[in-house]
Amino acid sequence: MAEQHSDLENAINTLVTEFHAAAANNGPTLQAQEFRGLLSSQLPNLVTTGASEQGLGEVMRQMGVMDGEGITFNHFWRLIQSLATTQHGLLCSEEVSKCSCVLL
Amino acid sequence: MAEQHSDLENAINTLVTEFHAAAANNGPTLQAQEFRGLLSSQLPNLVTTGASEQGLGEVMRQMGVMDGEGITFNHFWRLIQSLATTQHGLLCSEEVSKCSCVLL
Repeated sequence: MAEQHSDLENAINTLVTEFHAAAANNGPTLQAQEFRGLLSSQLPNLVTTGASEQGLGEVMRQMGVMDGEGITFNHFWRLIQSLATTQHGLLCSEEVSKCSCVLL
Repeated sequence: MAEQHSDLENAINTLVTEFHAAAANNGPTLQAQEFRGLLSSQLPNLVTTGASEQGLGEVMRQMGVMDGEGITFNHFWRLIQSLATTQHGLLCSEEVSKCSCVLL
């Protein structure tokens, strides 16, 4: 795309391309170890439980990944949605306003 | 947050803060005109149908917004999910690989 992009458009693009780049051979799914690499390089502050085998398993369970299954963009998106919702809640709770934040 | 953030963490932050900044008084929901402003300033390339009254109504309907209802972060997130899924599909279809992209 040659046109200029806004911050929001670039943000969407980053979410998509970072997932895609983490897959070997640009395959459609990530293996657990590829996903672990993505967590440690791209979500070190927001997902701190992925470093241990047990923590990684818990994160993947919450994303709906079954045992031995590859991680799809759909799974990944559930994690992003959860993180964004939490961040939105934090942002609103910091505001001294009437914001009651109807969340997901 | 004082710690350094990755591209992906910054992207999530952008999605959250841009929605929040578009609301007058940092309220929890956007009015239709505030949302129209957000579309034109932040999604000019990805959502081109929001400029007309009819197009805006259609976008809001797809986000699950009822007549006269304010736009919540949940509504906004449905739009972002839809755009990200489309972008992911485009990215995969451009790849000369075995990528079959299991989408949402």
